[in-house]
Amino acid sequence: MPPDEAAACSVLRHARGTVIPEIDLVAVEEPLELRLVQGDEEQSVAVTMRTPGADRDLALGFLYAEGAIREASDVLSLAEWRQGDLTTPNVLRVELRSGFEALRTLSRHTFTSSACGVCGTGSIERLALRARPAVWTRPPLAPEVVCGLPEQLRARQPLFAATGGLHAAGLFTAQGECLAVREDVGRHNAVDKLIGWALGQGLLPLSDHLLAVSSRAGFEIVQKAALAGLPVVCAVSAPTSLAVEVAGSFGITLVGFVRGDRFNVYSFPERLRLENVR
Amino acid sequence: MPPDEAAACSVLRHARGTVIPEIDLVAVEEPLELRLVQGDEEQSVAVTMRTPGADRDLALGFLYAEGAIREASDVLSLAEWRQGDLTTPNVLRVELRSGFEALRTLSRHTFTSSACGVCGTGSIERLALRARPAVWTRPPLAPEVVCGLPEQLRARQPLFAATGGLHAAGLFTAQGECLAVREDVGRHNAVDKLIGWALGQGLLPLSDHLLAVSSRAGFEIVQKAALAGLPVVCAVSAPTSLAVEVAGSFGITLVGFVRGDRFNVYSFPERLRLENVR
Repeated sequence: MPPDEAAACSVLRHARGTVIPEIDLVAVEEPLELRLVQGDEEQSVAVTMRTPGADRDLALGFLYAEGAIREASDVLSLAEWRQGDLTTPNVLRVELRSGFEALRTLSRHTFTSSACGVCGTGSIERLALRARPAVWTRPPLAPEVVCGLPEQLRARQPLFAATGGLHAAGLFTAQGECLAVREDVGRHNAVDKLIGWALGQGLLPLSDHLLAVSSRAGFEIVQKAALAGLPVVCAVSAPTSLAVEVAGSFGITLVGFVRGDRFNVYSFPERLRLENVR
Repeated sequence: MPPDEAAACSVLRHARGTVIPEIDLVAVEEPLELRLVQGDEEQSVAVTMRTPGADRDLALGFLYAEGAIREASDVLSLAEWRQGDLTTPNVLRVELRSGFEALRTLSRHTFTSSACGVCGTGSIERLALRARPAVWTRPPLAPEVVCGLPEQLRARQPLFAATGGLHAAGLFTAQGECLAVREDVGRHNAVDKLIGWALGQGLLPLSDHLLAVSSRAGFEIVQKAALAGLPVVCAVSAPTSLAVEVAGSFGITLVGFVRGDRFNVYSFPERLRLENVR
């Protein structure tokens, strides 16, 4: 299979007792290793399974979410490297302004075992050390803007249309204008790619912006939104308990089950123009 | 919110211009820390966001998939611990026959940066050191067995029915009889819980059994199936490129998009009784 974003494979398609051999497209999943570089030394910090493409944005977004960088200029250099005979890079070598100091931050956030307690409340307290409440200065959003997000995502998801196997994350203005959509086999990767892109564009904090995800909204998604200053998160599917708590703690309007002309609001409904409340 | 499997929260339900305040159930997501114990020392090895319940099975399945144990008796003791005023445990202390030696295995598999190459092929080569091709000794499966799996999963998913926010993994016999279903906010956790349960029952390797997942099938899912000796994996949604490759390398029949009377077969179709091939 070519190491690209979508790969062809043979499939037997069974439908109502009949079997048709076809060539199908599946979403590509390949490991990417992130290495920190300082002088002549380098150290591996993470390996993630991802869909190739926007790897630099993925690295930026990941390093930002893990607290290793605060702005794009904290990255002094970022070099892609192809191991073996692959056509897409599978290693990213990143040189940070802070050098290996970032390793402490990275290991703290990925393998947390601190005294502050491993529980949802502990996770929120740790997040509070790095994230501030999100800011919304605009008039309340029309419900139609929210209801229109899934269709806008799908329209900009060429890979999902071809493979059915990718999550999407999209960034929108308060008017519902789509600024960017990123796809990945991992929903956290799609959000990292999107926020990494926005960081590179100098758009953070993302006050007055909306994040839309084609998936459920778990802790990780809302945590990344909080760190990027996003005041509204809309998910096509269900939120988790911890996502609702984080949204409540960081001033995020969390909307779930956005389907057709329906949706559920779990926190800060005042940012939506809701009428006819019974 | 009570730290249980599903939690109640207030929601504003918007539908066609009308808003109704309701109490909704969301799937609980809480961190669980796994600590290895040797004598008086202990070391944190992982923190995972999971839905409480079946935590012991989750730990067993995780340790098995990471190569730290081979059978349930490799775990000398397993103690749940509640930090703070939580009602559900958030720390598991595990004492292994191999003691801290398992730490090397665990760090190798979670943060791999070895010379064997970070790419899909490298991942398959590493897996080949631990997994053997799956065994199927039964007559070919009737397509109806495959088509019936999603409904059997849903029927045993009380939490999904209530919250819409959980993945399920189910273990089935060659006759389509359901042996167990486990749910979690993370699809890899649902599979770990299921395989950890099977390990505790002495059922591994799971030759002649089927794994059904309510989600997509990515590398991680098929990798865990390969390690447990599962010869058939059926997913309600799409597979990834690496899942197809792993299935092809380890003798696994991979079936995707199982919906109604349709499904796609990506590898080893000879284990299914497919007629009327065009």
